[in-house]
Amino acid sequence: MNDGVKTTVSIIGGSGYGGGELLRLLLGHPNVEVRQVTSRSHLGEYVYQVHPNLRKRSQLKFSDPVSLEPADILFLAQPHGQAQHHIEEYAKLAPKIIDLAADFRLRDAAFYEQWYGEKHAAPEWLSKFVYGLPELHRAEMATANYISGVGCNATASNLALLPLVKADLLDVSSPIFVEVKVGSSEGGAEGNSGSLHAERANVIRTFSAFGHRHTAEVIQEMGVNASRVSLTMTAVDLVRGVLATAHAKVKPGVANKDLWKAYRAVANENPFVRMVKEQRGIYRVPEPKILAGTNYADLGFELDESNGHIVAMCAIDNLMKGASGTAVQCMNLMMGWDETLGLEFMGLHPI
Amino acid sequence: MNDGVKTTVSIIGGSGYGGGELLRLLLGHPNVEVRQVTSRSHLGEYVYQVHPNLRKRSQLKFSDPVSLEPADILFLAQPHGQAQHHIEEYAKLAPKIIDLAADFRLRDAAFYEQWYGEKHAAPEWLSKFVYGLPELHRAEMATANYISGVGCNATASNLALLPLVKADLLDVSSPIFVEVKVGSSEGGAEGNSGSLHAERANVIRTFSAFGHRHTAEVIQEMGVNASRVSLTMTAVDLVRGVLATAHAKVKPGVANKDLWKAYRAVANENPFVRMVKEQRGIYRVPEPKILAGTNYADLGFELDESNGHIVAMCAIDNLMKGASGTAVQCMNLMMGWDETLGLEFMGLHPI
Amino acid sequence: MNDGVKTTVSIIGGSGYGGGELLRLLLGHPNVEVRQVTSRSHLGEYVYQVHPNLRKRSQLKFSDPVSLEPADILFLAQPHGQAQHHIEEYAKLAPKIIDLAADFRLRDAAFYEQWYGEKHAAPEWLSKFVYGLPELHRAEMATANYISGVGCNATASNLALLPLVKADLLDVSSPIFVEVKVGSSEGGAEGNSGSLHAERANVIRTFSAFGHRHTAEVIQEMGVNASRVSLTMTAVDLVRGVLATAHAKVKPGVANKDLWKAYRAVANENPFVRMVKEQRGIYRVPEPKILAGTNYADLGFELDESNGHIVAMCAIDNLMKGASGTAVQCMNLMMGWDETLGLEFMGLHPI
Amino acid sequence: MNDGVKTTVSIIGGSGYGGGELLRLLLGHPNVEVRQVTSRSHLGEYVYQVHPNLRKRSQLKFSDPVSLEPADILFLAQPHGQAQHHIEEYAKLAPKIIDLAADFRLRDAAFYEQWYGEKHAAPEWLSKFVYGLPELHRAEMATANYISGVGCNATASNLALLPLVKADLLDVSSPIFVEVKVGSSEGGAEGNSGSLHAERANVIRTFSAFGHRHTAEVIQEMGVNASRVSLTMTAVDLVRGVLATAHAKVKPGVANKDLWKAYRAVANENPFVRMVKEQRGIYRVPEPKILAGTNYADLGFELDESNGHIVAMCAIDNLMKGASGTAVQCMNLMMGWDETLGLEFMGLHPI
Repeated sequence: MNDGVKTTVSIIGGSGYGGGELLRLLLGHPNVEVRQVTSRSHLGEYVYQVHPNLRKRSQLKFSDPVSLEPADILFLAQPHGQAQHHIEEYAKLAPKIIDLAADFRLRDAAFYEQWYGEKHAAPEWLSKFVYGLPELHRAEMATANYISGVGCNATASNLALLPLVKADLLDVSSPIFVEVKVGSSEGGAEGNSGSLHAERANVIRTFSAFGHRHTAEVIQEMGVNASRVSLTMTAVDLVRGVLATAHAKVKPGVANKDLWKAYRAVANENPFVRMVKEQRGIYRVPEPKILAGTNYADLGFELDESNGHIVAMCAIDNLMKGASGTAVQCMNLMMGWDETLGLEFMGLHPI
Repeated sequence: MNDGVKTTVSIIGGSGYGGGELLRLLLGHPNVEVRQVTSRSHLGEYVYQVHPNLRKRSQLKFSDPVSLEPADILFLAQPHGQAQHHIEEYAKLAPKIIDLAADFRLRDAAFYEQWYGEKHAAPEWLSKFVYGLPELHRAEMATANYISGVGCNATASNLALLPLVKADLLDVSSPIFVEVKVGSSEGGAEGNSGSLHAERANVIRTFSAFGHRHTAEVIQEMGVNASRVSLTMTAVDLVRGVLATAHAKVKPGVANKDLWKAYRAVANENPFVRMVKEQRGIYRVPEPKILAGTNYADLGFELDESNGHIVAMCAIDNLMKGASGTAVQCMNLMMGWDETLGLEFMGLHPI
Repeated sequence: MNDGVKTTVSIIGGSGYGGGELLRLLLGHPNVEVRQVTSRSHLGEYVYQVHPNLRKRSQLKFSDPVSLEPADILFLAQPHGQAQHHIEEYAKLAPKIIDLAADFRLRDAAFYEQWYGEKHAAPEWLSKFVYGLPELHRAEMATANYISGVGCNATASNLALLPLVKADLLDVSSPIFVEVKVGSSEGGAEGNSGSLHAERANVIRTFSAFGHRHTAEVIQEMGVNASRVSLTMTAVDLVRGVLATAHAKVKPGVANKDLWKAYRAVANENPFVRMVKEQRGIYRVPEPKILAGTNYADLGFELDESNGHIVAMCAIDNLMKGASGTAVQCMNLMMGWDETLGLEFMGLHPI
Repeated sequence: MNDGVKTTVSIIGGSGYGGGELLRLLLGHPNVEVRQVTSRSHLGEYVYQVHPNLRKRSQLKFSDPVSLEPADILFLAQPHGQAQHHIEEYAKLAPKIIDLAADFRLRDAAFYEQWYGEKHAAPEWLSKFVYGLPELHRAEMATANYISGVGCNATASNLALLPLVKADLLDVSSPIFVEVKVGSSEGGAEGNSGSLHAERANVIRTFSAFGHRHTAEVIQEMGVNASRVSLTMTAVDLVRGVLATAHAKVKPGVANKDLWKAYRAVANENPFVRMVKEQRGIYRVPEPKILAGTNYADLGFELDESNGHIVAMCAIDNLMKGASGTAVQCMNLMMGWDETLGLEFMGLHPI
């Protein structure tokens, strides 16, 4: 698929955590050449002055967004709400666009307005984007030109539920409470007073009990009724990582073997999904700790057969599978390349 | 109530985290004098060599359990399963006993066997003990001679649910999923391979999805049906602290104002219960971070009025309100002293 | 000394970490009554909305500094550089003043200018202040009206060196390198981009190799030549705590027994100084971890008798012994009260 | 250099942290094939059950050491003290051996005995091993068959001093105090009571003031007089990472520009050495935080020109540049491959 000529890519908004992670991945990707990375606030600085892991690996400097040149693929890594105002101009610069923000994740403009509290600025573009989770839309990506980003918490929640939803094992009359525990990198490189180390260290802080915007992506992608599902977000002391734990009920009669089958199917179909349910060792369940820097989603479950309660878990690195790693995976699929290209890092233990 | 003669107390099993915390509190308590602290493994060592915070504060040495002398109150801080084999001899040494372990928490021998997988060794003693949570059994404690310990996770769960149960606000047909996040001191001073810092740091590790023994205390004390409630335990990177988050449904028509009333009532009746539900500042919800060393239980809730989903939270320090602090509070009530005596520490911020 | 009428105190600048810690201590102090706590940015808010550990303990609200009323003692807990501009007006409001900032720590105006890069605004006041470390100036405090604050890093460094300097054991021809490792609360409640949890967690970050302003306090108080001593500051992942490790050479012939004698003397003379040098257990050397919330300074040393190299250590809680705890200790001495009043907290283990 | 036939490698002692990291690197190395990984305690288990990051990446199981088969290269990742007893048999199994332990690091048997307190079991083998730090012995490695491991703390210390020693800038009459701060993975997968999370979290714990065995490697490799150099080891709250900070004096007249030249030379000659001395951004000095998983050694310095004090820093990942990464780098050099092969990971930010 790759004839030796590198595909050119540029990143709009490259100074944040998502943009930095994307840049790291693209710099190490064998098929692409990074042309430009824009940042208004760090204009003219070397990228490694903001992303220190890139020292001695890249001599790129941040460009001005106004001097952006055409490229084969444009990645948008801006704060939410900007891309929808500039999508027309971006589309003139590149035939293919992958957005990391929330601008084009929801297909329905009214649904967008309901969750984001404002009218969408480019509603006609919503249907042009494929929702950017390969585990849900792999086939469509092969022919797509526009792929949206994914919410990190939505991704962990959706993948926790995916085997259950695909195999139709959930009791639809019971609520689904998804408890999501998250690291501090979710807060972004800007932060607020609560992000200060002295305030943020050692926390177990439930910063959103209901109504987190990523819930909309779970409703849309899992097809569950909005009144039935809730995401509760709790910050814990960790930089990278999300664990989504879905509490729900399975249909009458569903047993452990049915669940094993459903989970194994999803793990087998997806190179970055792993089933984790061990009887020995320290790491018996999905944990984000060992996923830092990887594109894996580790899934697991426990069923209480006495009452049908299920605890379904998904662990990811929020900046990788929850954002930039998945964006690169989407690029690979969109370009017809091996899905895992540039995403081979195994992760570290211990860490 | 205190005529100047100090009440004598001894601790059986004082080298663990619970015993050490108890010793710290008793050394600082104005009405008591600590006579003996036993430890087989640290026999003859100064207590500060095991509990370094006691340096320059106590010249006590660990005693041999076999040379235990009579005292006014005996505290049992042994690993679970020992006290029930020695309760007769302990009762000869002291007229009043407060146990911190799980031996005498459950009132029913069959229920004990169901959850602990073994016959109770002294079933006739079960009814002599008052369950050791003052917020549930304050009145009984005034005349009690034997008070049990409380499970730290049970305490956080019970107090999270208490206002809802007392005011009868829960929809009994819906499940109650209690997500409990815990620090590493719960694992005790012995630990296992998973407790090593390199393996335990940075974790979000669901070590028990169902069936945690503390569930039995929630069933017993909250009166909820066993098939309806489950506790899911997740270890996070913190030493001290528990946050229990109960996900449930309220009865039709229950609104925010009803919940406020129910929570305020419990906070007003209990000196160590605080209501935390702020609109500004960093600490808007209950968080264990700021509770280290205190006996507070901070309660909060969020209601989704659209569907009746409630998120009810309780944060505690597992070694204090979840164990030794509550044991001292019980002693105060049992002796007719001010309930807060020796438990005045406000906690630190930041920490 | 205390006839039952409480001494009135007010705090100017009570919304920072030092001011909050001071407020906590003063609220728990048996001899004082807190009248006012000022804050411009949090005017009218309850103090517990900023210092959440004070919830249910104080219904005080932040006052406007312009409406400050007279009090027996005024504590100044403002950012550095403000008190020197207002000291005349403050002195009219209270007969006794304790400053926590750096405004009045150095006795010599030229020396101040050299280290702070600006002329002092009230040089005539410098000689009126006693340097606020009781371990160095206890006697003077009994008759003082004005006591300065101490630098937290200076305090750890000075106390690490104190036994060696008092007993004249140091080789004056060798340099003294003090390595100071610090927690994030030193950075204050404002912080900067490097204070964000995602950037500040997991760090070992040497943010000042030379020239830290606290060095001036070591030069002044230890009487060492400026060219001989340097402080190197390294941030580590901890909220509260400082460990100062001084690397130096002892005079020829100085042996372990001389050092033991020197250290024991200092520990015996000072209620908040402890000697830590154990052969067993986990906590064999001074460690800030177990000092959170306490006013202790734990000292220890190791001598390489083969070459006279000494490693002298001092661990403190930067907000307590390094700031607010010491300020309360100074108040106690200035008022003729027991030096340890209100500072009895033993600290927690584990934490 | 690589004709398509993979070089076969086996690891003796693959269940520890060093062995696990080595296995991760070798599984991802394009030129080698991992044949066997031995472990007595985990015999028959999948390697991913111990090293969970290898899940879905390797179906290898741990082998019995007694059934070890010949390979092109044998890596020894056992605890210290074992390899010297078996080196003859190992040498029969493989023409090339790379040891990670301390058995063959010191060239002189008497020096070994002095630091390790026991006679070396195979002194005739000491001279056959090249000390395994490419930055010091690159040329020799091209023709070597036996390469030793490096101590992680020795490596950080040696690389911190290397530019100064190479350019002969140090004042030889002054002591060199190397302060080394380390993460918990140094303690290995076995640990001790002080390694428990509840005891090890939040620490600043100086566990060795003098006499750490790695000092011997600094004396040997830097050629400094033993009486002049000391390493002081302090544990901090981090899993992976070492920062060595050397405090010393430069020769009279040595200025910043001389140091820049010396450091740049070393950074230019070595692909894994980076110079870090920035005027802006968060990451201005060497920090291990961003090096997790990488083979970089980041160097920096600060000079106080007024008195010649220098602070020379080196940050590494102790399991990578301090152990397994360097071992793979040595393999690359020994085999004539590109020195950076299999070591391309850039590291993560934030983390």
